[in-house]
Amino acid sequence: MNNFTFHNPTKIIFGKNSISQLKTVLDPGSKILMTYGGGSIKRNGVYDQVTDALKKYSIHEFGGIEPNPEYETCLKAARVVKDEGIDFLLSVGGGSVLDGTKFIAASTYYTGKDPWDILTEGAQKTVKKALPIGCVLTLPATGSEMNGNAVISRRARGEKLAFSSPHVYPRFSILDPETTYSLPERQVINGIVDAYIHVIEQYLTCDVHTPLQDRQAEAILITLIEQAPLVKENPRDYNARANIMWCATQALNGTIVCGAVEDWTTHRIGHELTVLHGLDHAQTLAIILPAVMQHQREKKKDKILQYAKRIWGITESDPEKAIDQAIEKTVSFFNSIGMPTRLQDYKLTPDSCMTAADNLARRGDILGEHKDIGKKEVQEILRLCA
Amino acid sequence: MNNFTFHNPTKIIFGKNSISQLKTVLDPGSKILMTYGGGSIKRNGVYDQVTDALKKYSIHEFGGIEPNPEYETCLKAARVVKDEGIDFLLSVGGGSVLDGTKFIAASTYYTGKDPWDILTEGAQKTVKKALPIGCVLTLPATGSEMNGNAVISRRARGEKLAFSSPHVYPRFSILDPETTYSLPERQVINGIVDAYIHVIEQYLTCDVHTPLQDRQAEAILITLIEQAPLVKENPRDYNARANIMWCATQALNGTIVCGAVEDWTTHRIGHELTVLHGLDHAQTLAIILPAVMQHQREKKKDKILQYAKRIWGITESDPEKAIDQAIEKTVSFFNSIGMPTRLQDYKLTPDSCMTAADNLARRGDILGEHKDIGKKEVQEILRLCA
Repeated sequence: MNNFTFHNPTKIIFGKNSISQLKTVLDPGSKILMTYGGGSIKRNGVYDQVTDALKKYSIHEFGGIEPNPEYETCLKAARVVKDEGIDFLLSVGGGSVLDGTKFIAASTYYTGKDPWDILTEGAQKTVKKALPIGCVLTLPATGSEMNGNAVISRRARGEKLAFSSPHVYPRFSILDPETTYSLPERQVINGIVDAYIHVIEQYLTCDVHTPLQDRQAEAILITLIEQAPLVKENPRDYNARANIMWCATQALNGTIVCGAVEDWTTHRIGHELTVLHGLDHAQTLAIILPAVMQHQREKKKDKILQYAKRIWGITESDPEKAIDQAIEKTVSFFNSIGMPTRLQDYKLTPDSCMTAADNLARRGDILGEHKDIGKKEVQEILRLCA
Repeated sequence: MNNFTFHNPTKIIFGKNSISQLKTVLDPGSKILMTYGGGSIKRNGVYDQVTDALKKYSIHEFGGIEPNPEYETCLKAARVVKDEGIDFLLSVGGGSVLDGTKFIAASTYYTGKDPWDILTEGAQKTVKKALPIGCVLTLPATGSEMNGNAVISRRARGEKLAFSSPHVYPRFSILDPETTYSLPERQVINGIVDAYIHVIEQYLTCDVHTPLQDRQAEAILITLIEQAPLVKENPRDYNARANIMWCATQALNGTIVCGAVEDWTTHRIGHELTVLHGLDHAQTLAIILPAVMQHQREKKKDKILQYAKRIWGITESDPEKAIDQAIEKTVSFFNSIGMPTRLQDYKLTPDSCMTAADNLARRGDILGEHKDIGKKEVQEILRLCA
């Protein structure tokens, strides 16, 4: 097991009617900026629940944070923070709203020229302090509710980059599974696939003797596979909603990667496809993961075989056939819940995506747990996505 | 899934040579009281590592905190805290030293007559503040390094009671698996059994639709079963030591019980046996758990059958026989690593232990997840421990 540090200070308040507990975790004197997205919270009752819980607080609002939150939008919110003397950010929505809010929180105290530096120069150097953040989560997917990560897009430059800082962990996150009843099916599917692949990126790597962490990862994968059809069948199945929500949080709160090796190749290529072609984040992951498994089948052999056996019950003794079956099972699972897995499903071809490889190469990004996936390998992976 | 709140702010620093990182987490101006036990840390080099890392700090020492830390001892340490103006407690040792340190931390700010009130009246009412605590852990077992629980004994009154408070979570815990190489075998065995039964107490309960938490619990059980013989075979197997250490932490850091039902019957009866007859904590648990499983086999039927299948691979179709086999397998596992499971192994009889039932009854304690294990049922369980 590798040495590690684990520190996750986010308080989770989980369950039915938990939004009413907002007043127990917010300082009454706070000057709050409530951030949200396209307005679905006004249709599904969450906005009313939040404002009802915070009747006695001073609240400003900033709506319109888009999926794959845009740098320019965040800068606008940061100006509201300064103009209004905001001292607490309350993100109400999914992972995109929260990621945007994290960037707003970090940029508030950034003293350099351009807060975009946070994405390009690394948060360790650029983020020494951030506004405190709270979260009311309405979409289980990214795990942002219990980590210090955020991904920000700058469409004008064709960039989608991540940063990570201990200063932007939410102080609290409120997760009421009932708020997810009204989600569009596409977002539900996206969320399940996103959480699944978060686990895979921290699990399908070389073995450094972390059997507990492996099994904790497998626990999430098996539960997602088990619960996904229940939610598809009955969108108001509380327990299935709760289980998927909790899986998504546990998938990226730092637990399963303790002392283990991670490999964010699928995400990194996926971000480029979203920027290039506007595909949803999870849609890109579902296309790229099977290709990464195929391309890295030799280097990831042992763990793919463990995955084949423990997740899919594959008993095939020929390791090459077992790996093929594991990839097929993964694809079948995504397809079964309505998630396509090929570029052609979006009328795209590998050739139309090669800019992704160029962009990664231009930034000098070498991917993979062994740091051996460069431009040529990304191109090969993209060819496997046809 | 039940509603829940989860908040675990402890920073874990895990791995080889991690004690040297003490200076990165301790405020240089702190006036530190270093607490420890019987002095094994002076023989195994941990004391030297700690004092070496803290050469530039102001440190006082308080040794002699015993297994099942004693109230009177803690009060003595609390006087040192006041006399010397201590503002930080550094626990160096196992769970007993840390539990004692948590009580010292809480009692420092207790304004009532007798700090024992913290144990009898509940920490929610009595603990509003505590001295900050850090931990260097040398014995994986109790999970105290990443929770707010402590158990304190008062032998003069024949009492061993627990308290739990968010104020006594360690600010940080440093876990170097190499410090466990020199542990006496008895403590290693105790630690494995203690961690195993911590999981069981949060898992072998009625099902409230928490499939992820169930599998996270099973992940720990299976890993303990797998790693225990490795450590027995080679006490210097780093990965096995690391895996057991991390299992023990994960077993009682609040994760597996999120939204689930817990039942601390085995622990509660066990505490009484330790007070009565001086058995090690884990020794009492290994005796009582099989009897609790037997006594509660109807009420815990579904989960015992799940445990039988998933942990022990039992395929027996007759549920009664499967439950018998699951209990046998549990006993065999404990025995296989050198842990006895009967009162007679300690030359005790059920009759010699009935005071345990009286003591629980006298305090009005009704045990069990359904609150239906009273004096008569505790007596029945004890009869099954012969």
